Amino acid sequence: MFHAKIKSETLKGIVEVVSTLVDEAKFNIDANGFNLKAVDPAHVAMIEMEVEKNAFEEYAADETELGIDLDKIKEVLRLARSGDIIEMEQDEEKNRLIIRVGNITRRMNLVDITGMSDPRVPNLTFPAKVEVSSDELQKGIRAAEVISDHIALNAGPDGFEMYTEGDTDSVSLRLPKDLLISLDCIEDVRSLFPLDYFSNMVRSIPAGSGVSINLGTDYPVKLEFEIADQRGNVDYLLAPRIESD
Amino acid sequence: MFHAKIKSETLKGIVEVVSTLVDEAKFNIDANGFNLKAVDPAHVAMIEMEVEKNAFEEYAADETELGIDLDKIKEVLRLARSGDIIEMEQDEEKNRLIIRVGNITRRMNLVDITGMSDPRVPNLTFPAKVEVSSDELQKGIRAAEVISDHIALNAGPDGFEMYTEGDTDSVSLRLPKDLLISLDCIEDVRSLFPLDYFSNMVRSIPAGSGVSINLGTDYPVKLEFEIADQRGNVDYLLAPRIESD
Amino acid sequence: MFHAKIKSETLKGIVEVVSTLVDEAKFNIDANGFNLKAVDPAHVAMIEMEVEKNAFEEYAADETELGIDLDKIKEVLRLARSGDIIEMEQDEEKNRLIIRVGNITRRMNLVDITGMSDPRVPNLTFPAKVEVSSDELQKGIRAAEVISDHIALNAGPDGFEMYTEGDTDSVSLRLPKDLLISLDCIEDVRSLFPLDYFSNMVRSIPAGSGVSINLGTDYPVKLEFEIADQRGNVDYLLAPRIESD
Repeated sequence: MFHAKIKSETLKGIVEVVSTLVDEAKFNIDANGFNLKAVDPAHVAMIEMEVEKNAFEEYAADETELGIDLDKIKEVLRLARSGDIIEMEQDEEKNRLIIRVGNITRRMNLVDITGMSDPRVPNLTFPAKVEVSSDELQKGIRAAEVISDHIALNAGPDGFEMYTEGDTDSVSLRLPKDLLISLDCIEDVRSLFPLDYFSNMVRSIPAGSGVSINLGTDYPVKLEFEIADQRGNVDYLLAPRIESD
Repeated sequence: MFHAKIKSETLKGIVEVVSTLVDEAKFNIDANGFNLKAVDPAHVAMIEMEVEKNAFEEYAADETELGIDLDKIKEVLRLARSGDIIEMEQDEEKNRLIIRVGNITRRMNLVDITGMSDPRVPNLTFPAKVEVSSDELQKGIRAAEVISDHIALNAGPDGFEMYTEGDTDSVSLRLPKDLLISLDCIEDVRSLFPLDYFSNMVRSIPAGSGVSINLGTDYPVKLEFEIADQRGNVDYLLAPRIESD
Repeated sequence: MFHAKIKSETLKGIVEVVSTLVDEAKFNIDANGFNLKAVDPAHVAMIEMEVEKNAFEEYAADETELGIDLDKIKEVLRLARSGDIIEMEQDEEKNRLIIRVGNITRRMNLVDITGMSDPRVPNLTFPAKVEVSSDELQKGIRAAEVISDHIALNAGPDGFEMYTEGDTDSVSLRLPKDLLISLDCIEDVRSLFPLDYFSNMVRSIPAGSGVSINLGTDYPVKLEFEIADQRGNVDYLLAPRIESD
């Protein structure tokens, strides 16, 4: 059983994050909220999301799993104006989700979740952690994407750098320690990542919020950030691109 | 003879309605204003429009017929700013229309109206009439167009509904009696229409204005609405799509 | 040696003008500012630009020539917000230009200027000169471009006209003497120009500024206007299209 009401902005934020990786997702729901784990089709990135029930305006649920086509939720969100409340109700008999916005009722088939098992989250230890505003990351990405399709994330005791090199040009966004929210790094680390994955994820982070970047050398990156007005959090893991010499 | 001045917004409203059905139209002009009847090339929809001379800022005309390429009028309207006055003058000798906006003079050939006879308006009796805000119709159309290419208009003694069903999903906009401007319906009626025609016409209705929807079962729909600041009115007829069982 | 700081808006204005004709340009720099001459690949139009050093916020330079890919400067400008200062520094050793905006550093290879000699500016005498607001020219271009791909510039003792004729329609923007900033014309002149060249150049002129149009009959046109807050000026020459009878 699942029956809840949520602000359209909050639902939009959740869907934007998940849909950077997958078109369909299995939401694991219980009485306290929901969680979700998803891996992109190329197995390059993974997302782990937890949202508490108090991110919702109203919430009533038993343990259940809902397979949801995220594009359909986006269609409904386009009908909502800022401030609108979205009502969602599971129709267990017909295996449907009923969504209401104002006078509009949308009934959608749920996605078959047979075989949509939750991915295993790898055990990782990161030597460096940088906390930075998502706006700075956005700036670095915009500068990088005209140069190349990958981006290096470098950290050291003095600060954090996003660096990209192309055939003729290079671009760097350097954030010294005092422009970071926090920095926990005792030796230099550096890893290279596919720019499109990194960019899509960073763009889904709420504007103006802080992001923790966990880094190593030739090692995955883990981004941690909050959604749903601090009532939800996301871990995003991205595999590195190993540089050949 | 035809020589008139009109606010660019008023002319824009007129052209938007007519151009949902046809690219060229014959305007029947006399001393009191103009009227126009047009059928789309597929003979699915018909429009009847009447505009009084006091919809114009200045107006002087004898009985005449002008064949006008609506895209050319749109080109001129794109040169006008809000509040600009458009001057239109028939050049009978050269069979042209001269249009002035500010310091710009556009001279355009009129369209040959031989064979552009006015269509006959069918005689219809509608068992139900619903008056509703055009904004609500727009909302229902936006919800429907991701689902299917047709839309059902249903009315009953309790209210009005726009309903669309696709292969897996359905969507409904229900307006109970108290959300309608008026409702005159003693038994349930329901007809199915092509969504693109309905959508194009509804989008041309001035935002925030009321629309009368005349309905029956498996029967045409007639939309009635005002344009040109209540100095003009439009009847729009759309043939139903008969559902096969 | 070249090391300077400039407002992003000022740099944007300079790049927009030059890039209407060429993708790459040679900037001739000395202690007092820079100048630039460029001809488009089809040899139909020429630009001459001079910008004083006080158009810059800071400026230090010896005589040098920089071959610059204008698209790369545009990429950097897209990273700047209004009011941002752009720092540019020649790296003579690596033949690069280093550009800084905020925390972002972009390093770009300079373009090889071997063979990029300055074009010779022809000696021309114009019988008429019209000074007009660039906004009026923009209006005339917008009206013309739906009609044809050329535009006639006509001047006489009474005023200035932009005139375009197509197969069925014509359009004219007439500016009588009192709507011009100044008019110096004792006999009628008329020349025809390719609309795309004229339109691209006029669109690059700062909005709301005055333009001097030097005209003759079947003769080139020379546009003169200021950029960089009156600390720079541009001469733009466009060859006429000779009308065949």
